[in-house]
Amino acid sequence: MPEPGRQIVDLLLLARWVIPVIPASTVYEDYAVAITGDEISAICPRSEALQRYDAVVTLELDQHVLIPGLVNAHGHAAMSLFKGIANDKPLQQWLHQDIWPAEQRWVNAEFVHDGVELAIAEMLLSGTTCFSDMYFFPEAAARASRSAGIRAQFAFPILDFATVWGSGPDHYISMGIELFDQYKNSSLVQIAFGPHAPYTIAPAQLERIAMLSEELQACVQMHVHETAQEVDEAVARHGVRPLRMLYNTGLLNPRMQCVHACHLNADDIADLALTASHVVHCPESNLKLASGICPVTGLAQAGVNIALGTDSAASNNDLDLLGEMRTAALLAKVDASDAAALPAFQALELATINGARALGLEDSLGSLEPGKLADVVAVDMSALRLQPIYNPLSQLVFNQLSDRVSHVWVGGKALLEERRFKTLDAESIHARATAWSNKITGVSR
Amino acid sequence: MPEPGRQIVDLLLLARWVIPVIPASTVYEDYAVAITGDEISAICPRSEALQRYDAVVTLELDQHVLIPGLVNAHGHAAMSLFKGIANDKPLQQWLHQDIWPAEQRWVNAEFVHDGVELAIAEMLLSGTTCFSDMYFFPEAAARASRSAGIRAQFAFPILDFATVWGSGPDHYISMGIELFDQYKNSSLVQIAFGPHAPYTIAPAQLERIAMLSEELQACVQMHVHETAQEVDEAVARHGVRPLRMLYNTGLLNPRMQCVHACHLNADDIADLALTASHVVHCPESNLKLASGICPVTGLAQAGVNIALGTDSAASNNDLDLLGEMRTAALLAKVDASDAAALPAFQALELATINGARALGLEDSLGSLEPGKLADVVAVDMSALRLQPIYNPLSQLVFNQLSDRVSHVWVGGKALLEERRFKTLDAESIHARATAWSNKITGVSR
Repeated sequence: MPEPGRQIVDLLLLARWVIPVIPASTVYEDYAVAITGDEISAICPRSEALQRYDAVVTLELDQHVLIPGLVNAHGHAAMSLFKGIANDKPLQQWLHQDIWPAEQRWVNAEFVHDGVELAIAEMLLSGTTCFSDMYFFPEAAARASRSAGIRAQFAFPILDFATVWGSGPDHYISMGIELFDQYKNSSLVQIAFGPHAPYTIAPAQLERIAMLSEELQACVQMHVHETAQEVDEAVARHGVRPLRMLYNTGLLNPRMQCVHACHLNADDIADLALTASHVVHCPESNLKLASGICPVTGLAQAGVNIALGTDSAASNNDLDLLGEMRTAALLAKVDASDAAALPAFQALELATINGARALGLEDSLGSLEPGKLADVVAVDMSALRLQPIYNPLSQLVFNQLSDRVSHVWVGGKALLEERRFKTLDAESIHARATAWSNKITGVSR
Repeated sequence: MPEPGRQIVDLLLLARWVIPVIPASTVYEDYAVAITGDEISAICPRSEALQRYDAVVTLELDQHVLIPGLVNAHGHAAMSLFKGIANDKPLQQWLHQDIWPAEQRWVNAEFVHDGVELAIAEMLLSGTTCFSDMYFFPEAAARASRSAGIRAQFAFPILDFATVWGSGPDHYISMGIELFDQYKNSSLVQIAFGPHAPYTIAPAQLERIAMLSEELQACVQMHVHETAQEVDEAVARHGVRPLRMLYNTGLLNPRMQCVHACHLNADDIADLALTASHVVHCPESNLKLASGICPVTGLAQAGVNIALGTDSAASNNDLDLLGEMRTAALLAKVDASDAAALPAFQALELATINGARALGLEDSLGSLEPGKLADVVAVDMSALRLQPIYNPLSQLVFNQLSDRVSHVWVGGKALLEERRFKTLDAESIHARATAWSNKITGVSR
């Protein structure tokens, strides 16, 4: 029983700093986050929290900054098992010479399950609490993510041709809708449509996907305008740019997540803004494959919501959204020739609230606010190299912090404590990753 | 006494992988590096080393890759005490509104000593064994670096006006030459001329520096063509681009280190190539200040030696040369629209042998070869997020590894063992950094 006037909460986090994202550009010092069930019940000064709450568990995080769990809005998690397998090659060579042959030979449900677990381990260790995934065997991926307790959107892939996962669009869509039904009441997993790219799927299929996603009120994620070549070839083939073609099929709408969007003209940006479609910026993958630079300044000025993704570890090579945030901020500045472009706080928005918004989850995720789900990350700022700290937001965005993530909660449940997993078996994941690479390279060690 | 046919060495490092940099693009597996005194005495397969050498100390590094100690070819180490003090501002605003006023008020010999120790701690933890520094009170900086046991070049600053360190060019040069004499027999410290930039020092002074540096056979380091504004203003004022003006003063030569070099036309590149001057690329600082992108592909094609620097932690915010290498590789690809630009191995050359070459030290540093100084770094590749490892060079360049540096030797002497300092007092450095920031912000905590 609490004393009169006191309230019981499950978990009270007492932090040196809290950056809630909403309200904007705010850094609270000596603050508390109270969690009850799977929700944030209060955010207030430490002294007030100690007067007001009796907590089942109280955690002192006196060197730490608390931020909302990060939303990695685009990736192919299982491809972590292909990390570093091919480098220094442009997208089409990298796909045709290395990635697609490797996938054809090795990818199956077990590969996906093991690869996704490896990816989740890396994402939790670097502060991601929700990720979007587009890959074969999404049912195996969803199994891995549900058992880890992390939040995820699986955009099941749809292509015009057969792959290791299925025979063609009808097959992909029927398997995907089955999965959608299976997870429609899940609090952790949501299923979306994942038409691969304008160059791998015909307009007629896209119209069908537009219709189905409208019926189901499901999100759609697609690679769009990743390379200049893609845009040029589409214009040559269809007479219109891919984004206009998507507009014509009805796919551009507030449930649409356009990944990459490196090559945009003023009309493309206007189409995205008009339809309230989302862009998922994947700067490091775009750099490594020399695809281009997503014009975040122009998009933001037009009012387009920009989320952030790592893409797969095969073209990055990491799934570190904190690092991606830094790259996004640095790159936006040089791209706009303006050091004030994408300032630290806006970079953090990309990785949190904007990601939640792209996934249609902004009412429950993306900021630390009472009533939202308790997806919270603690970052330990005590490392010598981070000193002195004039402004924790600057260190958070412009320093490398992924190895300093100490705790991660998803819906109030601890998935990482002092960098130890609560739901994953690190040793087993490591052993399976090594076994896969030995099999793939034909080595035994 | 060794057995007949066996040789005594001081230290035998048995590593899973060795990337020697010379020979190029080579990854040795199950290899050994033997160290005698301050030099590398042998590099050979593990089995051969165990047959041939009796070692005073043998170290098993069976999850590790050994690389040459990294050379951070440009920075202002003491400014680590200003880390994150101002963000999201272009160079001239950042200097005039924030950095120069703060320097005027706070920088003295004690500040520099404490700041340099903080910087050295971060650099050792991320694998740098040799750094170049350009800042006030270089005598205090040299004291800190010598006592830490790290290798360094101090380019004493020369400007046309008075600063906290001196009254003007004559004063700076006389103090600098005194320092040069003091360290001319040092194995760890070398002193260079540091004319600040074409816009802060008159051509007549540059001619004098060209003459003096020729006499002393000393290196010269200078910020050159950092921003478009700098180039434009110089053309307006002097009728020539800064690099041509340097050429005319005799400063472009194989002892010249041109830092930044973001804005280069074909003539500039030809001048650099013709004179065998060096370029120090600082990609992250150039991004953060929106200065521009150094055209590394064009420079490399012209045969210009390109080294790598972090610049100061005030415009980066870190001194992590491993991370800088990754940024350099990623940025070169998108800048050249070619995913094959600056491949992983060349990025590693920038951070090692090219840096040694820029500092005139390529005969003794920059690669793991018998007869070179034993500046060696071990990176522990066992972290789950780095698995699986198809190609350690890919992980080394494209993954974030600074927190995985386990051991650092400079001239055969261990400065870092299992991430513990052997020559630095981490707690005292941390406390002094906090004390400085409290003083600067007027906070007591």
